[in-house]
Amino acid sequence: MDVPFTIALDAMGSDLGPDEVVAGAAIALKKRLTPAGILLVGREDELQTALKKHKLQDHPRINTFHASEVIGMHEKPIQSLKKNKDASLVRAVELVKLGTCSAAVSCGNTGSLMACSTLRLRPLEGVHKPALATVWPSKDTHFVLLDAGANPQCKPEHLLQYAVLGDLYAKAALGLEKPRVGLLTIGTEEGKGNELTAQAHELLKSIDGELIHYAGLIEGFQLFDNVVDVVVTDGFTGNIVLKSCESLYKMLKGLIKEEVKRNPLRLFGAGCLAGAFKNTRKRLDPDLYGGAPMLGLGGMVIKAHGSSNRNAIANAVRIAGRIVESEHRQQATEAIQRANQLTRPSKKRSGEES
Amino acid sequence: MDVPFTIALDAMGSDLGPDEVVAGAAIALKKRLTPAGILLVGREDELQTALKKHKLQDHPRINTFHASEVIGMHEKPIQSLKKNKDASLVRAVELVKLGTCSAAVSCGNTGSLMACSTLRLRPLEGVHKPALATVWPSKDTHFVLLDAGANPQCKPEHLLQYAVLGDLYAKAALGLEKPRVGLLTIGTEEGKGNELTAQAHELLKSIDGELIHYAGLIEGFQLFDNVVDVVVTDGFTGNIVLKSCESLYKMLKGLIKEEVKRNPLRLFGAGCLAGAFKNTRKRLDPDLYGGAPMLGLGGMVIKAHGSSNRNAIANAVRIAGRIVESEHRQQATEAIQRANQLTRPSKKRSGEES
Repeated sequence: MDVPFTIALDAMGSDLGPDEVVAGAAIALKKRLTPAGILLVGREDELQTALKKHKLQDHPRINTFHASEVIGMHEKPIQSLKKNKDASLVRAVELVKLGTCSAAVSCGNTGSLMACSTLRLRPLEGVHKPALATVWPSKDTHFVLLDAGANPQCKPEHLLQYAVLGDLYAKAALGLEKPRVGLLTIGTEEGKGNELTAQAHELLKSIDGELIHYAGLIEGFQLFDNVVDVVVTDGFTGNIVLKSCESLYKMLKGLIKEEVKRNPLRLFGAGCLAGAFKNTRKRLDPDLYGGAPMLGLGGMVIKAHGSSNRNAIANAVRIAGRIVESEHRQQATEAIQRANQLTRPSKKRSGEES
Repeated sequence: MDVPFTIALDAMGSDLGPDEVVAGAAIALKKRLTPAGILLVGREDELQTALKKHKLQDHPRINTFHASEVIGMHEKPIQSLKKNKDASLVRAVELVKLGTCSAAVSCGNTGSLMACSTLRLRPLEGVHKPALATVWPSKDTHFVLLDAGANPQCKPEHLLQYAVLGDLYAKAALGLEKPRVGLLTIGTEEGKGNELTAQAHELLKSIDGELIHYAGLIEGFQLFDNVVDVVVTDGFTGNIVLKSCESLYKMLKGLIKEEVKRNPLRLFGAGCLAGAFKNTRKRLDPDLYGGAPMLGLGGMVIKAHGSSNRNAIANAVRIAGRIVESEHRQQATEAIQRANQLTRPSKKRSGEES
């Protein structure tokens, strides 16, 4: 059976084991979430066992690639890559580098995956630093936030590029035609924010209308208010906001659970509200966009959460397929070149003209 | 009646009007939240009306100071200060400057209040930049986070000073003997975080045990996990995390409310759970620490939320009293001097020795 392209799926990185990853692949195939073939990367014996269990051993769109090693969640990025040359996440990235696969999906060690992807795939021409793009739920829809932690020491021109890459990703992942792009800062009046956002704001204004629809500065209190579709921020702030919000959500769930358990009336009430709680969780479902792509690299790599269940993995595969189909790499190369042209310092430009 | 000290309370800055602020003063006096006298600052006629309504016109611990102007919530800081020299928030700060009052509390325009306080009261000797300190609820307790937005362009030595000031504030506001101080970053392994946190981390290690109990680096996902009592971060990150978490909380409340209203069974269930929801809200009560002090200035100013209700205002007055009683200013001056001594660059130190 011919497949338009193949996705390398690191089967070893999930906290829940290779069986859960294979189950995710099974869902992706069964629900036709992507037309792509899936190449499972990991220990052959474990993969075969899981494939048999999920009755996938003869599926025409699934295949395996043996990798004997696994990088643990707490290993240090660079050291782990030096030590484990046959690690599943390394092999998955290499398969993209070789052109065998069009994208790689891994739940493995974030630092190792980011380092391996950056080292092997290199940034796209003109891109300074790659960014991790995440999809967040807001009240009635979703938005993209980047960078979520790949680049903690951002310069204004990095944020410019993230706006361009985030715009393309929002089009592919959320199906938006003209995403509104905002820059996260602290107060939109004069003299607020910091040097980074002040300079990035000017750069973004200069590509507004041509490359992106720049909706301007937004503040933290607007994050979930659906005022923009793409939130641009540096990797330090982005990562802390992401993790803090997850932490708050966890605490709130815990508090309500604790209060509910205090007496039988409350437990009964919670029973009546089971549907409401379930729907709320569903509307916030993190599995729906179970993968965060590293944007701006010469090949597509999607980082899925270490604790991803089968649904999250199936959705990460779906997102990987969508990005490949959107021809992200080609589009990103062109858009980044154009952005760099538009914002080239005028000194240099006038120098060229003379 | 003799009062140990007096707090200037800007009566005009609340979104809910001067009556709500006076109601807050009434609660503070009635519940004996502070031994301080309260000097209400604002339009005399409005203050007298409110005082009569709350039967406070003859209270021995309350007095008024006429200020004819009010700075609006959306006015630009510096311009508003130039234009409104008789604004209530300006007068409240001036009363601290003059020594008439030991602290000022205002719900007014944050930017104007911060600018006015910094310009009139000046930083304490040795302090580089003041910080806004906020108290947050965590699962079973509270913690202090600073800076929440006063200084968006932090240097490592600023974060060092915020650790020292936050430590003193946590002792006064939360009643802790030995607060655990943490530095917010993105991953505690090597090569993570940014230059600012890497350098601040070294500075904080050098005062650990002597001036503060430094518990090390923490990540966003630990924010509500009660691993530290004081979270140190730059004003850019701190403000965005604060506002984003408020935004998430608001969205979650909205989602649950929406789901509950969908059918009568759910509404009935929510009735059974009224106590659980109420307790959860109470445990997260933002009014309990309704004020954020500007730390590191030559006088104490507390910023209360623009939408503060009477309970929040009463608690802001309580916190103001506690900080004054803790002799924060004297202690901060000494601690900052010591911190600066301990972390003075070794080049300069050896230069002095030679």
